[in-house]
Order: sequence, then structure tokens, then C-alpha cells
Amino acid sequence: MTLTNKTVKALLEDFRSSAPTPGGGSAAALAGAVGASLLAMVAGLPKPRASTEADLHSLRDAGERCTALANDLESLVDRDSEAYELVVSAYRMSKATDAEKAARATGIQHALKAAIAAPLDVMRACSAAIALGPVLEAHGNPNASSDLQVGLELLRAGLRGARLNVEINLGSVKDDAYAAGVTGEIGRLSESDAAGAPSVSS
Amino acid sequence: MTLTNKTVKALLEDFRSSAPTPGGGSAAALAGAVGASLLAMVAGLPKPRASTEADLHSLRDAGERCTALANDLESLVDRDSEAYELVVSAYRMSKATDAEKAARATGIQHALKAAIAAPLDVMRACSAAIALGPVLEAHGNPNASSDLQVGLELLRAGLRGARLNVEINLGSVKDDAYAAGVTGEIGRLSESDAAGAPSVSS
Repeated sequence: MTLTNKTVKALLEDFRSSAPTPGGGSAAALAGAVGASLLAMVAGLPKPRASTEADLHSLRDAGERCTALANDLESLVDRDSEAYELVVSAYRMSKATDAEKAARATGIQHALKAAIAAPLDVMRACSAAIALGPVLEAHGNPNASSDLQVGLELLRAGLRGARLNVEINLGSVKDDAYAAGVTGEIGRLSESDAAGAPSVSS
Repeated sequence: MTLTNKTVKALLEDFRSSAPTPGGGSAAALAGAVGASLLAMVAGLPKPRASTEADLHSLRDAGERCTALANDLESLVDRDSEAYELVVSAYRMSKATDAEKAARATGIQHALKAAIAAPLDVMRACSAAIALGPVLEAHGNPNASSDLQVGLELLRAGLRGARLNVEINLGSVKDDAYAAGVTGEIGRLSESDAAGAPSVSS
């Protein structure tokens, strides 16, 4: 059974268990999926007055994009755990002979790249949803403003959580050119986090 | 059916729908529940070496506390939506006569306090779980360090999201002494957010 076909209650129990998956990577994807879903809800509640056809159109577009991103993030809850399990399996490969050692090393490097691709896609989706915030703020119903802000908080937590999962795997990757490319991209994607000022101060 | 007995997939759909609940308040409680669950998992994975009996004991205590807080936060996913529905119902009460107007005003004030109590409890639980971070950092397995950091990110997002929901309801409360007490408490609870430095910088 996929993680997202479980009940919320059962998935929370799985997060608490000491089994290797699901862990932080799937949790980050889930936070993003909830955040993007809240943004999709806000997009469905236009301002009661003073909305032009063009405004309503851009709000509807943003809503469709948020729904698509929420669906991507939902599937990434499972994809992250599956990719991490490949890494665990690769590390368990036999290393009795030199040929086995070489095959294991190659297997680990392939698995690590898949385990980086999943949280990198989480970062991309969270960043893309965060970028839709201003449209929702401008044309969404102000009564749903706290839903929008909570959604953005969850997307930022998803973005940061996914980055931690990219970085922890990137530390073991031997392909320097690939690592440099990923490092550059996660830096750029994190700018959408920095751009969003904390919405609460004490 | 309670929200947490639904599948994750179905709950995400509910967040996307334009029905008044579930909204940001339940989403904040869910983020906290996932975060506290990740911390409980980390507490179940002690450092492989150099753990004294006292260290293992404090880790186990922290784990039990995280599990209890995760359970509290799980039940708050539903409690927040139920409380918000009471507010919606109170606003819909008849106001044809002066007596009805007075009953409605009282009903709204009661419902608002319940709708503040739920996210305030989310803030308390998130703050209490965040406070256990240093014990988990000190005695948990360093291999689970990114799970711990993702958990803390989600707890901070839950804390901030719940605060937004307290504040939006507090704006309509007429009991100044009560409002002052809540404002003081949410300020103190938010200090556990400020204390935790962002774990990712770009």
C-alpha cells in the first residue's frame, strides 16, 4: 500500500516507528502537499468585490497550478521513501570480491542520485507554489488570508526539509560536476524561502 | 468520519476544497503531529556508542513525551476544525430580535474562545516538542540528524501557523483581560521558534 493511501493516523505511526522509511524526506513532501493544497483552496475563494475578469482568470490559473503541484508533492511522499530504500539496499550489496565491490559502489552512486532527485523535485514544487503567493494575496478572499499564510509556512518548511535531504545524500556523491549543479540549483531554489519574510514575529 | 481516519489522499483533497474546514488550523496541527512523530522516531535510535544509562534514560523519556505530544497534535487536527465550525454556526444564529442578537453575540464570543483554545494547544504542544530537540541532538543517532531537523522545521511551521489562527480569532474577542492573557502566552510560546535558528541558509 502506498503511504498516501494509508490513513493519516497510520502514516503518523509509521513516522514514529524506527523503520528507515518513511522519514524526513517523505515528511517534507507531505508538508509541501498540504501547503500547496491550502493555496489551491484560497485560489477557489475570489475576493467578493472588485475582481476583474483578468484577475479572476489569473487566480483560476494559479489555483490549477497549485492543484497540480499538490498532486506532484503527494506522489513525492512515496517516491522519496522508495528512493531512500534503494540507497539502503545498495549499501547492503555484497562486497566479497573486487567485482562485487565495484558493482556495489556503482549501485550506491545510482541510488544516491535517485534519492537526491526526489527531494530536489520537492524543492522545485514548493518553490513554484510559493511563487504563486502574491497572486493569491492580491486576488484571493482576505478572509482566507491566514489559510494562505499557513500554506506558505508549510511550503517553506517543505522546501527547507527537502534541502536537508538533498544535502545529506549529496555528501556521498562522487560525481563533482553533478554535485556542483545540484548545489547551484538548491541555492537558487532556497531564494524563494528567503524572499518570503517570516509572517509571525514575537 | 474524523479527519485523521481519512486517507492522506482524501485529507489533501479536503484541504483543497473550498469548504470552510479543514483549513489552516488543522493543517498547522497536522504539521506539528508529523514533526513530533519524527522526533519520536529519532528518540528510538540511540547513538551507537558512548551512551550512558542516564543518556539512554533521558532519550527514552524524551521519546515518550514526543509520542504523547504527537497524539495530542493528531487529535487537534480534528478539534481545530470542530471549533471553527462552531464559530461559523454562531455567526449564522438568528438576529431578528434584541434577545436573539444578545444570544448570538454571546454564542460568538464562546465559540471564538474555543476556536482560540485549539490552536493555542497546538502552539503549546509544538513548543514543548521543540524544547526536546537538544536532548535528541545530544543522544540520538547522528545518522538521523536530518530527520530531527526536518521534524523541528515542521514543528516551527506548526507553531507559526497555529499562532496565525489564534490571532485571527483574537481580533474579534471582546474580553480584554482574556485577550491580554492569550497575547502574552503566544508571545512566550513563540520564543521557542526564535530560539531555533533556521537550519538551512542559501
